[in-house]
Amino acid sequence: MAKQEDQERASQEKIRIARSKEIADKLVEIGNRIIRELEKYENPAVSIPVRSLSNVYYDEKARLIRQGNNKSDRTYFNVAQSKSFMQTMLMASKLRDLLEQGSTVGLRQLFYMCRGGIPGTNENTFDEQEESDPIVEDVEGMLDALREEMNVYADRKGILCGDLKIVDHGDEIDCSKLGSSGYGIPSIVEKGRVDFVDCKADYILIVEKAQTWSRLNEDKFWKKNKCLILTGKGQPARGDRRLAARLHKELDLPVYVFTDMDIWGYYIYSVYKQGSINLAHFSEKSAMPDAKFLGFMTRDVKKYDIPKNYWIPLDNEDHKRVKEISNYEWFKNKKEWLTEFKSLLDFKNKVEQDALVGKGIEFMAKKYLPEKIESKDWFD
Amino acid sequence: MAKQEDQERASQEKIRIARSKEIADKLVEIGNRIIRELEKYENPAVSIPVRSLSNVYYDEKARLIRQGNNKSDRTYFNVAQSKSFMQTMLMASKLRDLLEQGSTVGLRQLFYMCRGGIPGTNENTFDEQEESDPIVEDVEGMLDALREEMNVYADRKGILCGDLKIVDHGDEIDCSKLGSSGYGIPSIVEKGRVDFVDCKADYILIVEKAQTWSRLNEDKFWKKNKCLILTGKGQPARGDRRLAARLHKELDLPVYVFTDMDIWGYYIYSVYKQGSINLAHFSEKSAMPDAKFLGFMTRDVKKYDIPKNYWIPLDNEDHKRVKEISNYEWFKNKKEWLTEFKSLLDFKNKVEQDALVGKGIEFMAKKYLPEKIESKDWFD
Repeated sequence: MAKQEDQERASQEKIRIARSKEIADKLVEIGNRIIRELEKYENPAVSIPVRSLSNVYYDEKARLIRQGNNKSDRTYFNVAQSKSFMQTMLMASKLRDLLEQGSTVGLRQLFYMCRGGIPGTNENTFDEQEESDPIVEDVEGMLDALREEMNVYADRKGILCGDLKIVDHGDEIDCSKLGSSGYGIPSIVEKGRVDFVDCKADYILIVEKAQTWSRLNEDKFWKKNKCLILTGKGQPARGDRRLAARLHKELDLPVYVFTDMDIWGYYIYSVYKQGSINLAHFSEKSAMPDAKFLGFMTRDVKKYDIPKNYWIPLDNEDHKRVKEISNYEWFKNKKEWLTEFKSLLDFKNKVEQDALVGKGIEFMAKKYLPEKIESKDWFD
Repeated sequence: MAKQEDQERASQEKIRIARSKEIADKLVEIGNRIIRELEKYENPAVSIPVRSLSNVYYDEKARLIRQGNNKSDRTYFNVAQSKSFMQTMLMASKLRDLLEQGSTVGLRQLFYMCRGGIPGTNENTFDEQEESDPIVEDVEGMLDALREEMNVYADRKGILCGDLKIVDHGDEIDCSKLGSSGYGIPSIVEKGRVDFVDCKADYILIVEKAQTWSRLNEDKFWKKNKCLILTGKGQPARGDRRLAARLHKELDLPVYVFTDMDIWGYYIYSVYKQGSINLAHFSEKSAMPDAKFLGFMTRDVKKYDIPKNYWIPLDNEDHKRVKEISNYEWFKNKKEWLTEFKSLLDFKNKVEQDALVGKGIEFMAKKYLPEKIESKDWFD
């Protein structure tokens, strides 16, 4: 490794640690304020952003889904809120410990760390992980920080390959030399933990399915076409979105998304591009508004002569979801998408990317994808 | 890489290719025989091993679950069998193509490749992947070959880290330098595709949960304890079992398994150790009868003072499964296991390995696991 790169990464690591301290300090500050308020017999409260569709909007200018400014107070002396207030405090205190230790833990491990139990009672602070996960998101909102910055990981999903070196916790990993395995994308990919060096790729190709990724990797598509190939295995995990967005922004790489020709695939594209409703507070760090949708598109069926035995009839769920998605702000003003939705309904069938292997093992790698990219045949 | 290793791997690759040819030849032979029989107006048939509990037994001597010798004939001129006969033929022909090309495909891709469609009709040869997956297993049985040897992969799950170099399709991957990512275990890990060099580990530690793997990897448990750490993320995929078994046998490494303290964890151990009922034909290639179960055990609860707030009450499903598993041949003569099952029922609770992080971030890495292994506190 070049010396300059070493210095660059050492400085990233410093920035990460400074950010850890900043978040820990915020937590201490909140804790101290609450103690003071309790000592004065006041009713302490914390302010949490509202996480519901009503507080989510599409930012036309930035072209991403954002959380609005509505907040709700969570107070201690309030029968309806005191449990969640205490949960929030316990979670905040454990997160502070993690930040100070610099260690990371998983969401389920964190649930147990906070399960608590109130001395002298049979009560747990948390009975199920379904209670603790949202409290982590509350703390994210309270501090305007990401779970990943507070050292908490989730189960991971995605894989990446291509001509890029990644430095992951000090280990330099050459993503062009990982055989059939690829780089398994960690849940936490913040700067200072995961950094990039020596990228020789010209763009990022995101594919919906793991089996597509494997096929393209075996065909060395990334090598012949100078790209990175990433899959989030269906709906991507946060780490997959964050890594793709960092590569896109920091290395200035265009992003193309290739999914099934169905409403679920279209929506996966939309999550990569402008974020999701549930994680609106995460869009800024992970959305890629310039991403393009390569396909599979309804018009490709005819163009590439996809035989009927690869079609699967749409069911009620598909119809319902097309209707729902057509009304989302970020689709409803886009003519090409509304036309695509209509065309999908008219066609009455969907086509999975797995089916394309039926057109020949190398059809995707040698014909479909290169032609699509070459002729810029994509949707915005 | 040393020259000797290069030669060794080249010879593995040759063996793999010879095996591919052998399987392809068997397929051609079956195909030719069937054509001859048809030309003579005979009723062609293939013989498929029966894959049900009735044809599965526990081999006491080899200490693994095996498939019995019951076979059933699948014939062409038989209303009840002619569809599955044709499905088997189409599948066999596509598998032969794959073997000749040397390319690999995923099970879903293979489904589409075989979906077929009979000319002049609206019939598909396969309507759902649920139909084609068992036919792949039928062909495995018919040929006494593995899906992996016929170049068909499934979605993968597991991860590995430790002081070992793996050569994966020619790329040398140092599993001690993969940061927080680890080596994502491919679905196909047969010799010639995936080979081992330079192992400095003394044993293999298999852990049930991905989050446990991440915690131990971050604590560099593998480095301090000279081991490989592998997780199959719950029930392992075939590739995870096969890779573990190859490491165990070829490198002569003892295997320890660490799961949740519940019947599902105990059964995961059992699958690694003696195989599973559904994949009885796969046991020989993947079982590790010498594997030991480290825990978590009911007696550890007291020994390590696991507080009540980490316990989860057993439910009906747990009770039902304990009963079922107690009657399996491979458990019912093992006194320590029967005692453990009883003790679990008496304790009325289960404990997940995730909970142990509540005893301290490094409790697993610094106390529990080293003590267990040091004192040989395990079940067979």
